[in-house]
Amino acid sequence: MKPFREMTKAELLEQKDELERAFGVVKEKKLSLDMSRGKPSVAQLEMGMGLMDALNSSSSMKTATGTDTRNYGLVDGIPEAKQLMADMIQTKPENVIVCGNASLPIMFDMVSRSMTHGVVGATPWCKLEKVKFLCPAPGYDRHFAITQYFGIEMITIPMTPQGPDMALVEELVSKDAAVKGIWCVPKYSNPQGYTYSDETVRRFAALKPAAEDFRIFWDNAYAVHDLYEDRADHLLDILSECEKAGNPDMVYEFVSTSKVSFAGSGIAAVASSRANLEWIKKSMSVQTIGYDKINQLRHVAYFKDIQGIRAQMMRHANILRPKFEAVLRVLEDELGGLGIGEWTKPNGGYFISFDAMEGCAKEIVAKCKEAGVVLTGAGATFPYGKDPKDSNIRIAPSFPTPEEMAQATDLFVLCVKLVSVNKLLESM
Amino acid sequence: MKPFREMTKAELLEQKDELERAFGVVKEKKLSLDMSRGKPSVAQLEMGMGLMDALNSSSSMKTATGTDTRNYGLVDGIPEAKQLMADMIQTKPENVIVCGNASLPIMFDMVSRSMTHGVVGATPWCKLEKVKFLCPAPGYDRHFAITQYFGIEMITIPMTPQGPDMALVEELVSKDAAVKGIWCVPKYSNPQGYTYSDETVRRFAALKPAAEDFRIFWDNAYAVHDLYEDRADHLLDILSECEKAGNPDMVYEFVSTSKVSFAGSGIAAVASSRANLEWIKKSMSVQTIGYDKINQLRHVAYFKDIQGIRAQMMRHANILRPKFEAVLRVLEDELGGLGIGEWTKPNGGYFISFDAMEGCAKEIVAKCKEAGVVLTGAGATFPYGKDPKDSNIRIAPSFPTPEEMAQATDLFVLCVKLVSVNKLLESM
Repeated sequence: MKPFREMTKAELLEQKDELERAFGVVKEKKLSLDMSRGKPSVAQLEMGMGLMDALNSSSSMKTATGTDTRNYGLVDGIPEAKQLMADMIQTKPENVIVCGNASLPIMFDMVSRSMTHGVVGATPWCKLEKVKFLCPAPGYDRHFAITQYFGIEMITIPMTPQGPDMALVEELVSKDAAVKGIWCVPKYSNPQGYTYSDETVRRFAALKPAAEDFRIFWDNAYAVHDLYEDRADHLLDILSECEKAGNPDMVYEFVSTSKVSFAGSGIAAVASSRANLEWIKKSMSVQTIGYDKINQLRHVAYFKDIQGIRAQMMRHANILRPKFEAVLRVLEDELGGLGIGEWTKPNGGYFISFDAMEGCAKEIVAKCKEAGVVLTGAGATFPYGKDPKDSNIRIAPSFPTPEEMAQATDLFVLCVKLVSVNKLLESM
Repeated sequence: MKPFREMTKAELLEQKDELERAFGVVKEKKLSLDMSRGKPSVAQLEMGMGLMDALNSSSSMKTATGTDTRNYGLVDGIPEAKQLMADMIQTKPENVIVCGNASLPIMFDMVSRSMTHGVVGATPWCKLEKVKFLCPAPGYDRHFAITQYFGIEMITIPMTPQGPDMALVEELVSKDAAVKGIWCVPKYSNPQGYTYSDETVRRFAALKPAAEDFRIFWDNAYAVHDLYEDRADHLLDILSECEKAGNPDMVYEFVSTSKVSFAGSGIAAVASSRANLEWIKKSMSVQTIGYDKINQLRHVAYFKDIQGIRAQMMRHANILRPKFEAVLRVLEDELGGLGIGEWTKPNGGYFISFDAMEGCAKEIVAKCKEAGVVLTGAGATFPYGKDPKDSNIRIAPSFPTPEEMAQATDLFVLCVKLVSVNKLLESM
């Protein structure tokens, strides 16, 4: 088929007719599929069930250093869990605090604490007239929700396959002391699946912020989430790069096993410099007597070490890969060369990012919903839920079964075509 | 022995000599005991080990309503855990949000949220010139640490065996709009073990606060922690009393299984009115995708229902009771009638509260430490860690073994006598 833009009005109208008929047929099927969130599938969750046997009533519940995990205390986590989480992000265990069941609350707490108490002694953000965060976009809607919740002004930074537009980041960070942070998903970024290049990471580490309390919120959510054994992306360790660049305190890194063990019953950690960790611990010690150390011990008992995690992730990949490939195949087969959409082909992570023609995303998502397939809301990948081009759609292939995935993608490409045809006709 | 105050100087000097000799002997033993915190003992923790088998790799991981606990979602907790937690405090499951591993972080978050976002639409506390909390004291040091951390002014309210001095509470709450909250441990209070009388609860429910965003922080930490089957204290349900009194939104109630299952790996909940819960959920949904639902399911699978919890608590009581009784016996035998100390005789909870002669508590705690027994720091039970009378000491009999408890109490009474003798001699 030729590119839609090269079609005559008559050709487009013919397409429209055909597509509407096809849409009517799919609608009849009364699909009910949810592709809105990056949720692990049941098959992946089943793979983690050994975790439920990792500890039992005759297990020793002590850490290697003799602490009883069943009792109070050890606010920064058990040593062996520190090691495990550190290995996930190639850092040292002394850089790590292991917290609760997921990393999102750690990030929330970090922002909340900065609002009420500032960053390592600096003025609390709630006392400042204006606090701004840089938001590489498309990005993760739950990051943006946190900054929006705290009334922090969000500035969109364009994404490239190498990471955020670093020239713009450098300019804004160095000239504006109101810029206090930036949200990053540096590996297999949400939703594009891009991994920041070595140059990008080094430019991050070398930032010269106007604000002494500027911090990089480095959400390494997909640190071990490769889809292919032979073409995994590699991300530089930001903590050691920052140290080398003389900016040891500039980054908070987050990691979790939410998409390794169980979503919501994993363990999560923050990694940072000693000065930052001390500051965090001071407030954590008021907030909690300790996180769930038994669940930390359970994870160590099950995975043993980073090799155990990597092996599990390859089993996950065997389930995820065919779904990603199925989506990509349908996109290529049905939309390739039509000039009405572009999409990413990630080596890992949980998403494929789709860019429709400008002004079409909302309509495509609405059409899919009309026929029973729920996608992430259009705009969700941008600050304030507003995609300036109304173009980006996040595709989350993880949760549905392969059959559901095929059905959903067929519908998706149909809706993309239909909405694009309508758009082109409108402008004639 | 006659009361110390009635002794002549010569008699006191003779006592002093004898006590110092005895102290020297105990010091030689090089004890190393920690009675500083209300920690469950190893024997209690062993009783909960069945919890580790409650779920295994062949368990159904679904809730009664079909939600997969292993995946994301259900921010307010699984229905069966709501029921369990509701039954612990005699309320309805729809009044409950089940959260993470302990109740302290829920309380911290509640204060933190009020600072940054206010209470159900009212002005955020961080925007106010002054925020005050009433602090019945002696009370729980970790409560006071939260309010201190947020710069909230704490006003000490005297405790009575029926609960806080309600005339003073009523006066301050109704006349001062800066008073936004009060910390309460209404059943087996920390450290005195007092349970608020029905009249006290009803006067709480009938408060007429000057501030619309005044809230009672009702930490029902010892809701099911009776020591005796036949003389358990009874606490009125504050939520229904508030409703009856036309103040449905005035209270947040907290409950957890930290001292039922495992300290730090339990489940915890907040109970409140529909309006409060909606407000809380709005912010919770930004903070987390959900708490650890598997641990919620594990608790339900193990305890089944409130009867299961009550049965476990009676087994705990069988361990705790002899320790409480041993402490009380030594106190009575050694200090009874001497007029140098008073103490509580609780029917439940985790503590015995001891009041030494004015100006003696710090010295007693220091003396105990000198001989190897660590008590909760003197003053810890008061706001800002300052006991105006330097008199209150919290005794936590739960963690040590009965033998250790006996040794520790023998030392304690010795130190009380010695410090009191010195005090009386000083004033001669």
